[in-house]
Amino acid sequence: MKAEIISIGTELLLGHILNTNAQFLSQQLSILGIDLYFQTSVGDNRERLMQALDIAFNRADIVITTGGLGPTDDDLTRQTIADFFNINLSLHNESLGQIKDYLKKRNRPFTPNNYSQAMFPEEALILPNDNGTAPGFMLKRDKHLFISFPGPPNELKPMFLNHVKDKLMGLSNEIIYSWLVKTYGVGESQLEEILKDLFTSQSNPTLASLVAGGYVNIRITAKAMNEQDAYSLMEPMLKTIKSRLGDAVFGYNDDSLESVVVSLLKEKGYRLAVAESCTGGKVSDLITKVAGASEVFMEGLVTYSNEAKIKRLKVKEETIKQFGAVSQQTAMEMAEGVRRELDTDIGISTTGIAGPGGGSKEKPVGLVYLAIASRERQMVKRAYFTGNRSSIKHSASNELLNLLRLHLIKR
Amino acid sequence: MKAEIISIGTELLLGHILNTNAQFLSQQLSILGIDLYFQTSVGDNRERLMQALDIAFNRADIVITTGGLGPTDDDLTRQTIADFFNINLSLHNESLGQIKDYLKKRNRPFTPNNYSQAMFPEEALILPNDNGTAPGFMLKRDKHLFISFPGPPNELKPMFLNHVKDKLMGLSNEIIYSWLVKTYGVGESQLEEILKDLFTSQSNPTLASLVAGGYVNIRITAKAMNEQDAYSLMEPMLKTIKSRLGDAVFGYNDDSLESVVVSLLKEKGYRLAVAESCTGGKVSDLITKVAGASEVFMEGLVTYSNEAKIKRLKVKEETIKQFGAVSQQTAMEMAEGVRRELDTDIGISTTGIAGPGGGSKEKPVGLVYLAIASRERQMVKRAYFTGNRSSIKHSASNELLNLLRLHLIKR
Repeated sequence: MKAEIISIGTELLLGHILNTNAQFLSQQLSILGIDLYFQTSVGDNRERLMQALDIAFNRADIVITTGGLGPTDDDLTRQTIADFFNINLSLHNESLGQIKDYLKKRNRPFTPNNYSQAMFPEEALILPNDNGTAPGFMLKRDKHLFISFPGPPNELKPMFLNHVKDKLMGLSNEIIYSWLVKTYGVGESQLEEILKDLFTSQSNPTLASLVAGGYVNIRITAKAMNEQDAYSLMEPMLKTIKSRLGDAVFGYNDDSLESVVVSLLKEKGYRLAVAESCTGGKVSDLITKVAGASEVFMEGLVTYSNEAKIKRLKVKEETIKQFGAVSQQTAMEMAEGVRRELDTDIGISTTGIAGPGGGSKEKPVGLVYLAIASRERQMVKRAYFTGNRSSIKHSASNELLNLLRLHLIKR
Repeated sequence: MKAEIISIGTELLLGHILNTNAQFLSQQLSILGIDLYFQTSVGDNRERLMQALDIAFNRADIVITTGGLGPTDDDLTRQTIADFFNINLSLHNESLGQIKDYLKKRNRPFTPNNYSQAMFPEEALILPNDNGTAPGFMLKRDKHLFISFPGPPNELKPMFLNHVKDKLMGLSNEIIYSWLVKTYGVGESQLEEILKDLFTSQSNPTLASLVAGGYVNIRITAKAMNEQDAYSLMEPMLKTIKSRLGDAVFGYNDDSLESVVVSLLKEKGYRLAVAESCTGGKVSDLITKVAGASEVFMEGLVTYSNEAKIKRLKVKEETIKQFGAVSQQTAMEMAEGVRRELDTDIGISTTGIAGPGGGSKEKPVGLVYLAIASRERQMVKRAYFTGNRSSIKHSASNELLNLLRLHLIKR
């Protein structure tokens, strides 16, 4: 079973956006055991889209397009597909209703060109869009399957997972089953050294390492008839990796440092308070992205100014005078202060220089102090991160979450 | 002058990596005024690479490949290209020396398979690699130009900028110059209605709309001899768009709602305090991503629990009892409370239901109240957002930043 992806949108050809849809769909197809031999990107141009469709249908069983389902004149996918298969477009009333509801809920007017988004090739199976006005659609033609998704990733992903994935299952008699081992704190090359033999010797399952969002992930991929068989193929591998990497392995698949931290806090019945300076709310944002975080996350204080650190966290004025706001001592007093002031089990803090300005020889941009205070013990770490302001904030937040994780599993 | 990009690597087809090379090269070609109509990704497979090359050379003047120049057996680009053009590979001694030097400098062994990286099609112009062992190469054939880059972005980018870009200049006597008009609060379809005539009537500059990160952006693209001419072509268009969309236009190109808000606060010398419930720190995080935010951002409080809202922000217990934590009244008292408690010029707040749990008929997941309190006036908005927990947090944060922006330009 061979699939091909056609990404539609001039913004891709101008390099205005990164093609994350192609990556997402490729990962999903691989999980389903469907071979993908080509990805093509083409602009909002009828003739060239026709050309791309023609090539794709000549070499693939399943052709998937993304983009071009918007309400505007440069959104050509619906009409071009209809013409390609020589079938008519007809109005899908249910979709029309959903589009009107969607716009109404957001107090946006329904405009005439929204009609076009409810027009689909006859015989098409409509894929509802829970996050936008552009439904997708599936079409069977001869031996071919055609699937059309909207361009925005937050619309495409749920549409695939909720309405398409199960329809594609079983199209292949073998599944490709992937597991991600999530690690933090070990560099990619170092990790590949530690696991060198596994990376080279294996054919099924296979291993690959990928860096994503500050983590180093190890992807284990097994081919088998079903998930159970695939899992038993990779289980010994999982054990070996865990035994060699130890606590650097923080979770699997969808786990994140914040989700693991929230689970650990729940387990132990601890309440957390956060005091952030240079990370500016990123740590609280990450933790509160975890559903149910409110059970353990009491409060977060973004004490950016010295004034706020002193007034809100009771950091000593002399401490800041003597050692500076970016110092081990201030970080420690921030964590201890927020814990005490909010009367929680644990307090954590960040203070550093996110840049681009404010750096010096002794305290360069990227220098961050991270502290953890519980009733029993306290610890502070000096760390240094490279990158721009935004990535320094993110790296520092990950580092603190990992320290908290280690703190929680150690006790 | 038409170009086409072929990205080579099975890791792309498995979705293990994101194709940032295609985006980088697309941006560069567009700056150079070279049209790009197709991007193709293909695996490390000789037959299918041949197929992709055949298609590309039939419709483009310049074909650019990335990847497949490594030392291992699955790196097929050099040999496949030679076979495609039916010319021989020969050893390039200068490159061989550079590869040996590169490895020696890093105490890495020179292995026999590194020889293959110094083998190139005869007549090829070699592109030195300052950051790895894989040189690239250029080849003129009939009227066609072929360019082959290594896959790692940190090797490809400097190679393009230092050794290729100037050779491509002047192949086209035009540049393609793009501007983004950033808008918020007007749906894409509504926006297209308002600007319909511009979208349809224009050939140079051309208009396109794209949704990204919660904004609707309008891309204006002009072809001209130089940037000045291009800008004067788009200037009247920029004026028309601004006059029709008014305050929905919040900025241009790299502007974000948060960067605009920070500039406005600086302009007016206002100090800001933030009280967040459902957004959990996201608003503070966005604002503090802006360099220099510390001048105007005093403090952010993530008051997740009712207790914190009452203790920290002096929200009345009866208010929460009577109307609930997610209510217009609570949002208003949060904004006014954080402004008063921190003695700032402006206080802003969010309270809502980010989900997945906690929703009800009257107060469904996605319901958010956003409030702004200044010394002179207060306002609160009821909004409703769809999507998952994370996107609801982000949408609500954008909405609040936009309300603050409007509040600041109105006074």
